[in-house]
Amino acid sequence: MAKDPRPAEELTIWEDARAMINKARAEGIETVHERLQKQTPHCKFCELGTSCRICTMGPCKITPKSPRGVCGADADVVVARNFGRFVAGGAAGHSDHGRDLIEVLEAIVEGETKDYKITDEDKLRRISAEVGIETEGRDIKDIARDAMECFFGDFGSRKKEVSFLSRVPQKRKDIWTKLGMVPRGVDREIAEMMHRTHMGCDNDAPNTLLHAARTSLADGWGGSMIGTELSDVIFGTPTPSMSQANLGVIKEDKVNILVHGHNPVVSEMILAASRDPEIVAEAKAAGAAGINIAGLCCTGNELLMRKGIPMAGNHLMTELAILTGAVEAVVVDYQCIMPSLVQISSCYHTRFIDTAAKARFTGATHFDIHPHNAYEQATEIVRLAVKAYSERDASRVDIPCEPVEIMTGFSNEAVISALGGSLDPLVQAIAAGDIRGAVGIVGCNNPKFQQDSMNVGLAKELIKKDILVLVTGCVTTAAGKAGLLVPDAIEMAGPGIKKVCGALGIPPVLHYGSCVDNARILQLCAALADALNVDISDLPVGASSPEWYSEKAAAIGLYAVASGIYTHLGHPPNILGSETVTNIAVSGLEDLVGASFVIEPDPVKAAELFDERIKAKRIGLGLSE
Amino acid sequence: MAKDPRPAEELTIWEDARAMINKARAEGIETVHERLQKQTPHCKFCELGTSCRICTMGPCKITPKSPRGVCGADADVVVARNFGRFVAGGAAGHSDHGRDLIEVLEAIVEGETKDYKITDEDKLRRISAEVGIETEGRDIKDIARDAMECFFGDFGSRKKEVSFLSRVPQKRKDIWTKLGMVPRGVDREIAEMMHRTHMGCDNDAPNTLLHAARTSLADGWGGSMIGTELSDVIFGTPTPSMSQANLGVIKEDKVNILVHGHNPVVSEMILAASRDPEIVAEAKAAGAAGINIAGLCCTGNELLMRKGIPMAGNHLMTELAILTGAVEAVVVDYQCIMPSLVQISSCYHTRFIDTAAKARFTGATHFDIHPHNAYEQATEIVRLAVKAYSERDASRVDIPCEPVEIMTGFSNEAVISALGGSLDPLVQAIAAGDIRGAVGIVGCNNPKFQQDSMNVGLAKELIKKDILVLVTGCVTTAAGKAGLLVPDAIEMAGPGIKKVCGALGIPPVLHYGSCVDNARILQLCAALADALNVDISDLPVGASSPEWYSEKAAAIGLYAVASGIYTHLGHPPNILGSETVTNIAVSGLEDLVGASFVIEPDPVKAAELFDERIKAKRIGLGLSE
Repeated sequence: MAKDPRPAEELTIWEDARAMINKARAEGIETVHERLQKQTPHCKFCELGTSCRICTMGPCKITPKSPRGVCGADADVVVARNFGRFVAGGAAGHSDHGRDLIEVLEAIVEGETKDYKITDEDKLRRISAEVGIETEGRDIKDIARDAMECFFGDFGSRKKEVSFLSRVPQKRKDIWTKLGMVPRGVDREIAEMMHRTHMGCDNDAPNTLLHAARTSLADGWGGSMIGTELSDVIFGTPTPSMSQANLGVIKEDKVNILVHGHNPVVSEMILAASRDPEIVAEAKAAGAAGINIAGLCCTGNELLMRKGIPMAGNHLMTELAILTGAVEAVVVDYQCIMPSLVQISSCYHTRFIDTAAKARFTGATHFDIHPHNAYEQATEIVRLAVKAYSERDASRVDIPCEPVEIMTGFSNEAVISALGGSLDPLVQAIAAGDIRGAVGIVGCNNPKFQQDSMNVGLAKELIKKDILVLVTGCVTTAAGKAGLLVPDAIEMAGPGIKKVCGALGIPPVLHYGSCVDNARILQLCAALADALNVDISDLPVGASSPEWYSEKAAAIGLYAVASGIYTHLGHPPNILGSETVTNIAVSGLEDLVGASFVIEPDPVKAAELFDERIKAKRIGLGLSE
Repeated sequence: MAKDPRPAEELTIWEDARAMINKARAEGIETVHERLQKQTPHCKFCELGTSCRICTMGPCKITPKSPRGVCGADADVVVARNFGRFVAGGAAGHSDHGRDLIEVLEAIVEGETKDYKITDEDKLRRISAEVGIETEGRDIKDIARDAMECFFGDFGSRKKEVSFLSRVPQKRKDIWTKLGMVPRGVDREIAEMMHRTHMGCDNDAPNTLLHAARTSLADGWGGSMIGTELSDVIFGTPTPSMSQANLGVIKEDKVNILVHGHNPVVSEMILAASRDPEIVAEAKAAGAAGINIAGLCCTGNELLMRKGIPMAGNHLMTELAILTGAVEAVVVDYQCIMPSLVQISSCYHTRFIDTAAKARFTGATHFDIHPHNAYEQATEIVRLAVKAYSERDASRVDIPCEPVEIMTGFSNEAVISALGGSLDPLVQAIAAGDIRGAVGIVGCNNPKFQQDSMNVGLAKELIKKDILVLVTGCVTTAAGKAGLLVPDAIEMAGPGIKKVCGALGIPPVLHYGSCVDNARILQLCAALADALNVDISDLPVGASSPEWYSEKAAAIGLYAVASGIYTHLGHPPNILGSETVTNIAVSGLEDLVGASFVIEPDPVKAAELFDERIKAKRIGLGLSE
């Protein structure tokens, strides 16, 4: 194994991660850091976005000596096509996840499952009314059926716009209409993105980018939003609760099952099965104190938000969690699951279990989970973990720390409830300048950054400046481990935040959910814009994905910008090979949609950029800086 | 301009092409051949399929020293993901084309267009009945509305299978069901392909490939088939007629308009407008003898099949056609339109006009064509060409040859009609061994091959062996220029073909349409299998794309194989970096779906492979070799 020569301290800001990286090195187990070393330096053409393999007249790469591919495409076209497909991949991930929730709703409506039910009937009525479904005096099943058809329809070809565009301020919709960017069907925009980027179709970079934006909007206001809303309907709308984070949530005396992936459909069943008294008894008979479920990445966020299940870690902790040697099973659904987890699991007694037909892992144990068999399959999986407990090698167990407390569960419903029933107090706090603005920090880890240094650094800088922070996805665990997700963290914030959040008893950094739940932030922005009778781009808000790595993050970033939200990235997507595309991303979009991307690897400088932006927007609204 | 050192004779088998390549060189105009030289050698990783840029932890490349990407994906996973997306791009292209036809049908049904109408009511009734729509005694508009909804539905998430699976033999459907390969919605399979290939989803190469096959089937039996069938409904089902091919169809004394792309929706309007007496008078007033429409690539095939419009050329002729200096306008819709055509047009008086919002070309003149304004916009375009005529520089005009005669128009309906009303005579001819089998030769040109050497070479070899050849797409013009598309070509065929085709007065190589029209060949195979009560994989048939280059060709190849048709490619897709993927493609699929790919760059050897395959299948059916 080629070693990463850098000490663990350089790779991550966390003690638990450093301990496990060193353990991996001692045990000769390869992690993402070693693989990154081997893959560095990266191919410059792929990195710049100037390599093309869209047809077999190539592959081509655009260079000063060969400025056009075999077909004649120049750097602008090649970069735009690649980026368009990158965004399509991200939108497809989120949105197919959303579709899976509709299918669960269908199974409920059709009576094909006993394992899932409509938990939040009020929310189902409310969102159904929002998309134009008659709800008055109707049976909840009938409403659910109409909602299911409506949302399936949002993936089709028969609509002029996705349903939740009902939430978009009219000024914003007018911009999209003018630019031809109104998202029609989710799958349709994805398929059209693929069509446009076939050889000999869209050969005008700006035109391709506009469709990439449209595709991302279909994700943000379509697939993702449906995913979030139906997850709430089926599993319950989150309310604030306390939980814990870091590798310390893995328990030496328990059967530990890590759930990893994004969709709560499977992980909720694993959780339920782990509480089956019969199986708990089996675990105790095997010598364990019980069964412990902990989360990784976004399916972890889903369980954390709704059930208070603790988080073992974010993206770069997924390998390291297994290295504790105390994990009996990793149960995955899909997305962001490093295939290396199969190999690392095999270095221990850990069972690696995949559950989705569309996300199989060579070497994994597969359980084919569907709404009709989910709980029964989940019990089998949990039993497998219980069996594995006896194979645990105690001498190789190392749980390197005690868990940190976190507060979670900030759905918009919960926030409005905390505010006393309406957004008015928040609007007033913004108007008064106690809360100067808000920034959503979202997305991933990337081994190219010292893990969570940017995620945490930016959040800390922003709250000091009285800018409220909302976190989702992998930034959640980062903020949590940094002590930012508890009410006491107001001590790290500026005076305004301290006053407002202190009075409400909430942290200055609010956990808003998983990656699809960025749709909650969109909805909040739209509601704030409506409350102020302005466009979203007029608000003193921003978004950031400091350590992003995935196509989904690119889709999220693009729908944020296209929705009028100034968006920071810690490093650029693979577009720098085209001046045209780069210029559009970092400035041209400002003219078109009233927001753009900004790339800044330094969290302090990024916070200053947000500060400037928020000042300008506050002045635009006639408020103090 | 870096010159391609190879003489034109090595680049193409055609005199017209050679003359224009030499003209380009003399005039200092770059063509695809020079660009290929500059792009050679290609990046080995992109060529092997082992480069990955699906996330920004990379980009990665798989090598012996770095056998896994940063995420842990190995060569198998990386290659499978790349190939899955390659197929998705192709399926998206064809199928989005199909959707555009449904939208025209919608405009007809909704009374939003006067420019399009239902031309073949019988066919609409017939295909509607096939997909379960009540047709008896109903108004054609009502049937059309139901058909429209049904086909839109085929792109959605509500169906368990696309409608035209009604045409698939039960034995074949059983195989697909067993493998989880039944295509549900067209867009859904494409979006799921993108989802599966996101980082951390499908990390099992065979599983990814099965979904690639499902996606391709959604194209072949879904999007493409809908495209073909509705084009027939709207523009008429082809019947045999005579036409011409090669650059000689461009007329020195006329206003020449080349239509290029794939969808007849625009090109049919250009054709209609070019026959407007008022505009013809304007052309004559400008000194021209009239207005001449000639086709390139598949939109050319569409007009050729239905209207007998001549073909100026196939893929590698598109640049060269402009080099005649006698082209007033190139009017494009989408797909396979080399962006270099804009530059080459600008070297002459040629107007380059794009017409689709989803396929813009930097530097082109754009007309935004929709069903409600298509004819009116087409008249403006034709008038633009008429105006350009006066700018033509006679001294730079060189039309290098006289056109060759071709026969066209072989839809399945036309073939059955030629056979006297049923497929029985064909089945009997196969049973008797006069026609030993049939091979569809389809697809593209690729400058990596001497243009059309394989396309023509293979066709000639096959008919000698009494194997009937069906051609579509760019192979059409190749076969036509080689004199294979006329009844007299039976002189080049074996005795059986000579007898049967001679008696019917048809060529030994039948023009079956455009690339989406490969769906016609699927339908024919299904009907033959049903007639013999066997599976498609039992038939003595094959498919070939000798000089393919595009993602669409990969989708076609894969749906052919997944449908049970042994399929030859002149060169491999970018999969050789994975032994697993390569082995599945060239042998593993045989066990799964009863057919596989074969790669063979020599047309004589390829013909021998087909001969062996057909022998074996004939023996399997209890027939003579």
